[in-house]
Amino acid sequence: LILGSVADSLLELGEFGADRSGGVTREAWTPDLFAAYEWVGERMRALGLEVTVDPAGNLLGRWNVGNGGAVLVGSHLDTVPSGGRLDGALGVVGALHAVARLQEVGFTPARPVWIVAFMDEEGTRFGASYPGSRAFAGEDITRYGEFHDADGVTLAEAMSAHGYDLARAAEATRIGDVRAFLELHIEQGPVLEAEGKQIGVVTAIVGQRDYRLQLRGQANHAGTTPMRLRYDAFVGAARIALGLRDYARAQAGVTANVGRVTVLPGGSNVIPGFVELTIDLRAPKVASAAAAEQAVERLVAGVAREEGLEADLEQTSAADPLELDPDLVEMVEQVASGEGASTLRMPSGAGHDAMVIGRRVPAAMIFVPSVGAISHSPDEHTHPADLERGVQVLAAALRQTAS
Amino acid sequence: LILGSVADSLLELGEFGADRSGGVTREAWTPDLFAAYEWVGERMRALGLEVTVDPAGNLLGRWNVGNGGAVLVGSHLDTVPSGGRLDGALGVVGALHAVARLQEVGFTPARPVWIVAFMDEEGTRFGASYPGSRAFAGEDITRYGEFHDADGVTLAEAMSAHGYDLARAAEATRIGDVRAFLELHIEQGPVLEAEGKQIGVVTAIVGQRDYRLQLRGQANHAGTTPMRLRYDAFVGAARIALGLRDYARAQAGVTANVGRVTVLPGGSNVIPGFVELTIDLRAPKVASAAAAEQAVERLVAGVAREEGLEADLEQTSAADPLELDPDLVEMVEQVASGEGASTLRMPSGAGHDAMVIGRRVPAAMIFVPSVGAISHSPDEHTHPADLERGVQVLAAALRQTAS
Repeated sequence: LILGSVADSLLELGEFGADRSGGVTREAWTPDLFAAYEWVGERMRALGLEVTVDPAGNLLGRWNVGNGGAVLVGSHLDTVPSGGRLDGALGVVGALHAVARLQEVGFTPARPVWIVAFMDEEGTRFGASYPGSRAFAGEDITRYGEFHDADGVTLAEAMSAHGYDLARAAEATRIGDVRAFLELHIEQGPVLEAEGKQIGVVTAIVGQRDYRLQLRGQANHAGTTPMRLRYDAFVGAARIALGLRDYARAQAGVTANVGRVTVLPGGSNVIPGFVELTIDLRAPKVASAAAAEQAVERLVAGVAREEGLEADLEQTSAADPLELDPDLVEMVEQVASGEGASTLRMPSGAGHDAMVIGRRVPAAMIFVPSVGAISHSPDEHTHPADLERGVQVLAAALRQTAS
Repeated sequence: LILGSVADSLLELGEFGADRSGGVTREAWTPDLFAAYEWVGERMRALGLEVTVDPAGNLLGRWNVGNGGAVLVGSHLDTVPSGGRLDGALGVVGALHAVARLQEVGFTPARPVWIVAFMDEEGTRFGASYPGSRAFAGEDITRYGEFHDADGVTLAEAMSAHGYDLARAAEATRIGDVRAFLELHIEQGPVLEAEGKQIGVVTAIVGQRDYRLQLRGQANHAGTTPMRLRYDAFVGAARIALGLRDYARAQAGVTANVGRVTVLPGGSNVIPGFVELTIDLRAPKVASAAAAEQAVERLVAGVAREEGLEADLEQTSAADPLELDPDLVEMVEQVASGEGASTLRMPSGAGHDAMVIGRRVPAAMIFVPSVGAISHSPDEHTHPADLERGVQVLAAALRQTAS
């Protein structure tokens, strides 16, 4: 089994779950995902790795050389419905190619190297968040057992159908044997392309606060109610959306989004008496996340007071940011430069398995540019030369970490 | 047939179409509306008026005295579904009481006095706008013939069911015999109550421009897209809503409302790529309506340019404001003061038959306060003393106009 170009490998792998949209639908605990595991597993074995799928459904290929904690390298093979060929897959295929290149040049690691494809990174099928890497890192994932997909199949049932037992997922915990984690991924954003940089050196994975905000004013006749006697919930929502934008623009790496908005009663000639909206707030540091949280609360309270609205702000989820290991960040930057790549330090605005693993052991992420910032779409694309460069940098970082 | 208090008359009349909500449902061309006509018609006859229903379905009670053009006085008897007892009915009942009071004191008009209840002022059943007063004023209403209600019954069919022929509606045109129009109505807004005034002297009926605005930006990942690289259609919508509010607040009598808003794709973690919203813009003068129209266009174009959005602004309807006859406005203000009432000159933010009739002959409107600004609801209410005061002012204005 000879590996061709990285792009060719991704094309081949993309056949598993290829759908009519031209994209890839390879959700967690499906035959298509296990077929992809098989394809990767064959290539792991050809590289002399010991292949297993752990009790949480993570695919592992272990290069059992050297001593001490292993260097874990990889990403995930599951996709969102009608996703692309690169999200996740690049990190696994890249690890295969990186190990192959190190073997070609006769490099022998001083410590074990494990390639991993974590189960269900996307979380779209059951709504469980990172169950594979969580189990690997020692977190209890049995709480996700009753989470179910659109057909009513629970995670526990889906695992059973493939011969797995959620109750035994804790046996997947191997983090104690791991020294560091490296993940190559597409950026899924516009920054590298906009800045003309080839490699993104990820400094942090942003923390996220999700809110549901309800604003209650007074529905009224849009013609007979003078402007100064209105309690317009949509005006309140508009001020909050703009206030959030202003705040986020002024903070390094912070983003804010109002993505879902419902305006009631919804008559063109009725002043909106009620608005419900979501706020997605992200920040790269624990301190900036806490400050942003306070800013949201202040903003909402201030607008509600000034507009005479009743505000009900509920935080629906919270994940703290993870600042990646400074030494690994430094190392990735240096080896990337050593490979002749232009680099940019940047936070990751999306979540990744590295966020889970990185809480336990030093972790680093390497980004390659996404054409047009498109991801979670059949149109997801990265230029072949950028794919090769990413794998070169991953191989160099792996060599450094495993020496 | 003795008329008791105005409030008692409205209670009695409110039995026709009384519904389970505690309100009144008396839509156009229904047996309940004709039953109300019968109740009013009996009382007209008791006052010696000649009662007819014209070919457009308008109820007329003519006091055929004096010479020259008649003074038309009234409003409408149809309601919105689950409406109140006052909207429209007050103007008709008030006209009955006013004529009765003038007769009691032995006043003989120098010109004919016609009480009118225009058919289908609300327009909610068929979506036709002011068909009764339009036909009376000489406008062709056959274009509404195929307009249909929720059950698929067309206006033409509904008229046939009651023995009327839409093709003959033009025969209802009597505007040439009318000298002036007086309409007593509830305010349906909060101004009189907020200002502590008893009688609103309506200076104008606002013109209305309706718009549908579509904003197209770029749907994108809310985490990976930096703030400065976003084309957020909802941010554009928010700026436009606030810009409209600021504009309207700075102009006398102008209102602006964004009442219906759709945000797509609607994911909490997706930057809104598309927003559709409605704008309801009203102004009391032709000049202020034209200026407001230009302000909307400038605002939308400016925000779209600054935010990198594509904007499609479509004017879906336009009705010019009607400035009411200055002499009649002055007269109403004087007679109201003469009756000891506190007055406020104000525009009407809602449309009325006076807008249609007032384009052909001098018209005036008299407002009484609405408790809590509630209208089009079973809770519509005006204090009995305010009802009596309104009728006193109407009677005095009628006496003045008919002298």
